[in-house]
Amino acid sequence: MDLDRASVPQLREWETALNQDYAAIKAAGLNLDMTRGRPSIDQLQLSNALDGVLQGQFKDDAGTETRNYSGADLIDGIPTAKALFAPVLGVKPDEILIGGNSSLTLMYQAVQFGHLHGVAGSPAWNQGGEVKFLAPVPGYDRHFTVCEHFGIKLIPVAMNDDGPDMDQVEALVKADPQIKGIWCVPRFSNPSGIVYSDAVVERFAQLGKIASAGFRIFWDNAYAVHTLSDDAPQLANLFELSRKYGTEDSVYVFGSTSKITFASAGVAFLAASPANLKLIKHHLSFSMISPDKVNQLRHVKFIGNLDNLHALMSKHAALLQPRFAAVLTRLQALKTLGSWTEPKGGYFISFDTRPGLAKTIVKLAAEAGVKLTPAGATYPYGNDPQDCNIRLAPSVPSVSEIEKATDVFVTCVKLASVRQEIAKRV
Amino acid sequence: MDLDRASVPQLREWETALNQDYAAIKAAGLNLDMTRGRPSIDQLQLSNALDGVLQGQFKDDAGTETRNYSGADLIDGIPTAKALFAPVLGVKPDEILIGGNSSLTLMYQAVQFGHLHGVAGSPAWNQGGEVKFLAPVPGYDRHFTVCEHFGIKLIPVAMNDDGPDMDQVEALVKADPQIKGIWCVPRFSNPSGIVYSDAVVERFAQLGKIASAGFRIFWDNAYAVHTLSDDAPQLANLFELSRKYGTEDSVYVFGSTSKITFASAGVAFLAASPANLKLIKHHLSFSMISPDKVNQLRHVKFIGNLDNLHALMSKHAALLQPRFAAVLTRLQALKTLGSWTEPKGGYFISFDTRPGLAKTIVKLAAEAGVKLTPAGATYPYGNDPQDCNIRLAPSVPSVSEIEKATDVFVTCVKLASVRQEIAKRV
Repeated sequence: MDLDRASVPQLREWETALNQDYAAIKAAGLNLDMTRGRPSIDQLQLSNALDGVLQGQFKDDAGTETRNYSGADLIDGIPTAKALFAPVLGVKPDEILIGGNSSLTLMYQAVQFGHLHGVAGSPAWNQGGEVKFLAPVPGYDRHFTVCEHFGIKLIPVAMNDDGPDMDQVEALVKADPQIKGIWCVPRFSNPSGIVYSDAVVERFAQLGKIASAGFRIFWDNAYAVHTLSDDAPQLANLFELSRKYGTEDSVYVFGSTSKITFASAGVAFLAASPANLKLIKHHLSFSMISPDKVNQLRHVKFIGNLDNLHALMSKHAALLQPRFAAVLTRLQALKTLGSWTEPKGGYFISFDTRPGLAKTIVKLAAEAGVKLTPAGATYPYGNDPQDCNIRLAPSVPSVSEIEKATDVFVTCVKLASVRQEIAKRV
Repeated sequence: MDLDRASVPQLREWETALNQDYAAIKAAGLNLDMTRGRPSIDQLQLSNALDGVLQGQFKDDAGTETRNYSGADLIDGIPTAKALFAPVLGVKPDEILIGGNSSLTLMYQAVQFGHLHGVAGSPAWNQGGEVKFLAPVPGYDRHFTVCEHFGIKLIPVAMNDDGPDMDQVEALVKADPQIKGIWCVPRFSNPSGIVYSDAVVERFAQLGKIASAGFRIFWDNAYAVHTLSDDAPQLANLFELSRKYGTEDSVYVFGSTSKITFASAGVAFLAASPANLKLIKHHLSFSMISPDKVNQLRHVKFIGNLDNLHALMSKHAALLQPRFAAVLTRLQALKTLGSWTEPKGGYFISFDTRPGLAKTIVKLAAEAGVKLTPAGATYPYGNDPQDCNIRLAPSVPSVSEIEKATDVFVTCVKLASVRQEIAKRV
């Protein structure tokens, strides 16, 4: 379907056929959801043994009682959980904090503390006027809304195939001392699925030298071990590199087991320098007495070690691969009408339509019973200036449902594109 | 030991004997802790069956999948948990939000949202100048530090045997529109153990009519079902009364299972009017996707119904009663040297020394191996103007340990009091 070279009668013919296809799909009364990066029920089942894994033993191997409150010494989690999860983020056990069920909450708190109280070595961000964060786009809507809740302004930055446009990032942080952070999903980026290259990570490690005091990289390594294929690219260790440049304090690394065990009942972690962790623990202590240490211990007992962790992730991959394949195979029909990523991990496929069509396509799909992430959601304030990015999240539906949903999507993209081309011509 | 009538030689004689007692205690090398209101290991054991109670079933009776993320509809918890815990706070299931493992976190968030974003029908507290909260004293240090973290000024208010001095409370909120909240532990108050009288609760229900817009009562019903004896006084239902006066929006009620099941791994709740809950859910949605619904379901399955809940609380009481009795029996020796409460529930005994002695006594006890809550902790900014209040928390040590610890306490009170009296005379 080569729209640019097609005659108007040809376009009209296509439109008529597509209108019929679309009407047929609508009549089928589908109800499919590809909106969010959730695990499927099959994936959740893999961790059912979490409940009951303790078998009446509520102390960890270090002798920590998990059921009770604890003092300030355990506000950052139980020692055995630190030991288990530190290598997942590429840090040492004393460089990690183990929290509750949500890494988003840890990120929110890190922003809150920085904004209202300051970060290690630097006063409250909000003391110097309007605070700004860089937002590589397309990106994760929940990152953006954390900033919005505190009135922090988001400045979009372009994403390339190897990570954010670092020329742009460096120029911006150099020029504007009110830029206090940048949001990153460095491995299997949300939504594009790309992995930041070693060169990009190396430049991130040096950002702390040119950025203003109090600047922090929010390195959301949500998909640190979430590969879909064995040849998935590795991510360079930002934390280690930052030590080389003496910029350790500029890095916050986040992760969780939300897509390893249970999405609602996992454990979240934050890796940071000793100075950062000390201050974050201090601020956390105003809002809580102890994280849920029992659930931390469940994870230690259930996962046990890194080999088991990777074995579990292979089972996730086995469930996710055919779902991603089902989408990617069908997208081939759209070669002339858009571009998309073929991620080696994570939860998303990012699709770019011809400019000005994303909203229309998402609406057409919704009316045909296929819910997609709202167009624009991957941009700050929901504003995709090209109106072209659509995030596809194929993890939840079954393979046959995904085939149906993607067929709907393909029809909608074609229909919207043909209609747009006709409108241009006449 | 009647200090006021004793001669100086008599006082000296007592001091010599007490010095000897104290030296002997010190030599015994005790290491006992009565600092915080924690459950004992025996109490924690009562809920060991929580882990594994789900037996592979992760949906609640309403069909809610608990393992996965969920939409905004479940950000306030699963329906069956609302149904179970609403009556504990005396509200309807649609007037409660079920959170994570910490009611302190819910209180912190409620303060944060009010302070920075506003409450239902009223703008951010911090937009009108310095924000103030009333703090009935002695009170709970963790309440005070929440305010301190946001720079909210605490104004102490006197506590009577039936609750806060309501004349004072009413006069203050009438006079100063910057007073936006008041902290209360209305049943088995921390630390005094008293229960607010019906008359006091009725006056609280009318506070919303005289306070400034945006004023909220932080009704921390932490010990709602935590009775030590069958004749424990009931607490009037503030939420119900507030409906009578049309002041529903002025009330936030908090509770948790931290001292019902596991202190670190329970579930917390917040009851409020529909308008309040709607806004709180909105703000919460920036910082989290879902509470730990699996742990909520564990609690639903483990506790089941209110009868089971009360049966469980009776087992807690059976473990706590002898501990409280051990303290109270021994305090009889201090009749002329202080006053104390005899609570019918909760976790604390509040002891008032002669003015100016609390810090000295806590220090003496610490040096003799008995850790007590720091003197002053029950007052905002750690400032007990009379330096007389000491909170005793007898839940954790065994009865024989508590006997030893209280003997140490009694000796320390006597010694400090005699020394003070001698210093006055000479």
